Amino acid sequence: MTQKQAVDILVIGGSAAGLVGAMTAKSNHPEKSVMVIRKEEKVMIPCGIPYIFGSLGTSDYNILPDGGLESLKVEIKIGVVTTLDKTNKFVKTEAGEEISYEKLIIATGSQPFVPNWLVGAEKKGVYTIPKNKVYLDQLMEELNGKEHIIVVGAGFIGVEMSDELNKAGKKVTLIEIQERILGAAFDEDVAKDAEGKLTDRGVNILTGVGIKSIEGEESVTSVILSNGETLKVDAVILSMGYRPNVELAQAAGLKLNDFGFIDVDEYLRTSEEHIFAAGDCAGKRDFATNKLSRTMLASTACAEARVASLNLYNLSTFRSFKGTIGIYSTSIGETAYGVAGLTEGAAVKEGFNVICGSFTGMDRHPGKLAGAHSQTVKLIVSKDSGRIIGGEVIGGTSIGELINVIGFIVQGGLTLTDLLVAQIGTQPMLTASPAAYPLIKAAEIASRKMRA
Amino acid sequence: MTQKQAVDILVIGGSAAGLVGAMTAKSNHPEKSVMVIRKEEKVMIPCGIPYIFGSLGTSDYNILPDGGLESLKVEIKIGVVTTLDKTNKFVKTEAGEEISYEKLIIATGSQPFVPNWLVGAEKKGVYTIPKNKVYLDQLMEELNGKEHIIVVGAGFIGVEMSDELNKAGKKVTLIEIQERILGAAFDEDVAKDAEGKLTDRGVNILTGVGIKSIEGEESVTSVILSNGETLKVDAVILSMGYRPNVELAQAAGLKLNDFGFIDVDEYLRTSEEHIFAAGDCAGKRDFATNKLSRTMLASTACAEARVASLNLYNLSTFRSFKGTIGIYSTSIGETAYGVAGLTEGAAVKEGFNVICGSFTGMDRHPGKLAGAHSQTVKLIVSKDSGRIIGGEVIGGTSIGELINVIGFIVQGGLTLTDLLVAQIGTQPMLTASPAAYPLIKAAEIASRKMRA
Repeated sequence: MTQKQAVDILVIGGSAAGLVGAMTAKSNHPEKSVMVIRKEEKVMIPCGIPYIFGSLGTSDYNILPDGGLESLKVEIKIGVVTTLDKTNKFVKTEAGEEISYEKLIIATGSQPFVPNWLVGAEKKGVYTIPKNKVYLDQLMEELNGKEHIIVVGAGFIGVEMSDELNKAGKKVTLIEIQERILGAAFDEDVAKDAEGKLTDRGVNILTGVGIKSIEGEESVTSVILSNGETLKVDAVILSMGYRPNVELAQAAGLKLNDFGFIDVDEYLRTSEEHIFAAGDCAGKRDFATNKLSRTMLASTACAEARVASLNLYNLSTFRSFKGTIGIYSTSIGETAYGVAGLTEGAAVKEGFNVICGSFTGMDRHPGKLAGAHSQTVKLIVSKDSGRIIGGEVIGGTSIGELINVIGFIVQGGLTLTDLLVAQIGTQPMLTASPAAYPLIKAAEIASRKMRA
Repeated sequence: MTQKQAVDILVIGGSAAGLVGAMTAKSNHPEKSVMVIRKEEKVMIPCGIPYIFGSLGTSDYNILPDGGLESLKVEIKIGVVTTLDKTNKFVKTEAGEEISYEKLIIATGSQPFVPNWLVGAEKKGVYTIPKNKVYLDQLMEELNGKEHIIVVGAGFIGVEMSDELNKAGKKVTLIEIQERILGAAFDEDVAKDAEGKLTDRGVNILTGVGIKSIEGEESVTSVILSNGETLKVDAVILSMGYRPNVELAQAAGLKLNDFGFIDVDEYLRTSEEHIFAAGDCAGKRDFATNKLSRTMLASTACAEARVASLNLYNLSTFRSFKGTIGIYSTSIGETAYGVAGLTEGAAVKEGFNVICGSFTGMDRHPGKLAGAHSQTVKLIVSKDSGRIIGGEVIGGTSIGELINVIGFIVQGGLTLTDLLVAQIGTQPMLTASPAAYPLIKAAEIASRKMRA
């Protein structure tokens, strides 16, 4: 007999978007019943995953807590949704349950992408980095005793995995088909700095070289690179990007966009108005150009989930999701890197007349204070409109929030002039000096170029 | 014979506002001659001064560098301006020089305030904290061998001095007439936290108690408090606030405002249109209420100087200085505190209907990562307009930039809804988690209160 259950708001997926979607929905509609259905018993903090392998030492310290859901009395169900009937508003699970709903949020996330031209990816000793605790625990165990690891793909996950595995004592080679690591996120100058730091820490980096095939009988023993070289290895970690999980939505007849994500409007509504999608599975558009984007970020996912949940029963946030800005940061040793909005390269490619200003100072003042780190801010400005359209930073740990300052500047539509007259807070132990605050100095430099 | 010199742009004062004013003027008008005239051979970084006494160990590490001025070919003159003739556009110095100018920026700063009712302030062993290297070097030397020091006044300078002297091994008692240390800057809850941290570090704090008189023959031996108690001490440091240096401007016939600062408009022009004033000596108005304000901050000073310099010859920044927001931060040991805009107390006092939201999380995610610190954000929202009018934060060192995020939110006129849909950047080693980012969670809480 089919077990049947009815809830008001159903959220499929328990990672960042699912968690925030459910919590926001319940907080704002305490009278509604809310259920999260997810595959995993224990959910991984997505961006924390690389740190399991070095700094944390165990995935048990990287669990997204259920406390928030529990205290709000959101029901948590572990299960796999196999069918969505959007006309009759119910889903079916692998276990045969039927759950009907009033409003649905699809937050099914993404999974690692392995290109089908890659020969040998199925061999033992070849891994990806899914957001799956059971898989990751096994990966960690299997890496024990393996010495030389190749990481393929130098996006944020690849770079952080390389740094952490290196920290854990492994011999790591990071290979990247582009000319620079993190080259999709940062301009050349910033990416080069990151590359230098990672090399200094002992990671062997090969750029401009791809992987052709993975060799070995049952288990991997070597890889063949696109330049013909062979590298002996004990394990391969593929971090070649992620693809949205859209099978359920597609089978239900929801519209996908041209990039294969679930199509959504500015309120995160899908083609079926009572169904919302948020997070890695949901379509994104670039903040500057409104073009489709593939950006996947837990922080963006949370913002989308919040917007979706606030607009479930009535539109409460006017034209709320105006496009994905993409605010990224990472750290390599003591040095951290951040980017928000368009890089110079991307802005030029998109057709902006671009003016940039860049300034390097110290992140404490005086710079002699212990713990001071150099800090570079690069601002990317639309010459015609004067608007700040992006920024990149290199510095100490404080750049994690400094890039959010730039994020708000971009989101708020601030211009160079706004920055020239802006008030900031500074303190010797915490920030750069007020007279040489790199963000403002970069704006001054851009502004002089503008008038030249 | 009088030595005469003519420059295009003359800046009086060499601290934050003078430095930034001169550099901005010259950068934007490379064809003009620019001179800074200042009293000090070597200028102290103003906010770095407390750190001389502990973390830095010498004022030589706290010098505002002249490199920026020199590389721009701004002339630096050491001297004291005694007279300003605004009609004939020249100044006279103590050394008898006459310097004529086209445009003038007055950045004469402020000096420590000692109330005239305080008996015994002239005794040996009683000090203030002026921005004067010679004085500070002597103070540092004289403190050698002195054990018990009383610091009077628990604003930022008093608190930072107490913490640093304590760090340097002194026995420090900090007394404050208000009920809380930093009570003018922070709401009760935040101030109380700071008070606890400073006490834990070994500073003896007496609040709700003032100083009545300073006793001793030639040198201080004790102080009598407002409650009649006597405290034996070896030295007294008075940090009872600062007053603007306006004698020169006043004698020249420039208008002062009701608080005794040099009156300026939104372009930092004084009552004489070719003369500008910036920094501690220049009048300030509150960003929220437009009422006169006494806020003195090096960072605000720099913003004012930038605005003044950009508008010397033509108005280039429309209605640029819209009022002082007041973005402060400080740190006590591993914990840092920040505030931007109005506190809850100030907002209520000014007549706003106020809604607040407060959330505490961790500043890394997962919180098990080494170096993680708890992080609290409190947002102050105008209930009627939905606008964020202030914020307070407690956390690790990253709050130095997090308070700037809030500063831009206040300056940008963002509302609660803007925050609910805002995109932020998060990273395990650098920030709180995206699902529990205290700034956004605080906005959610305020927003629910708003609708309740």
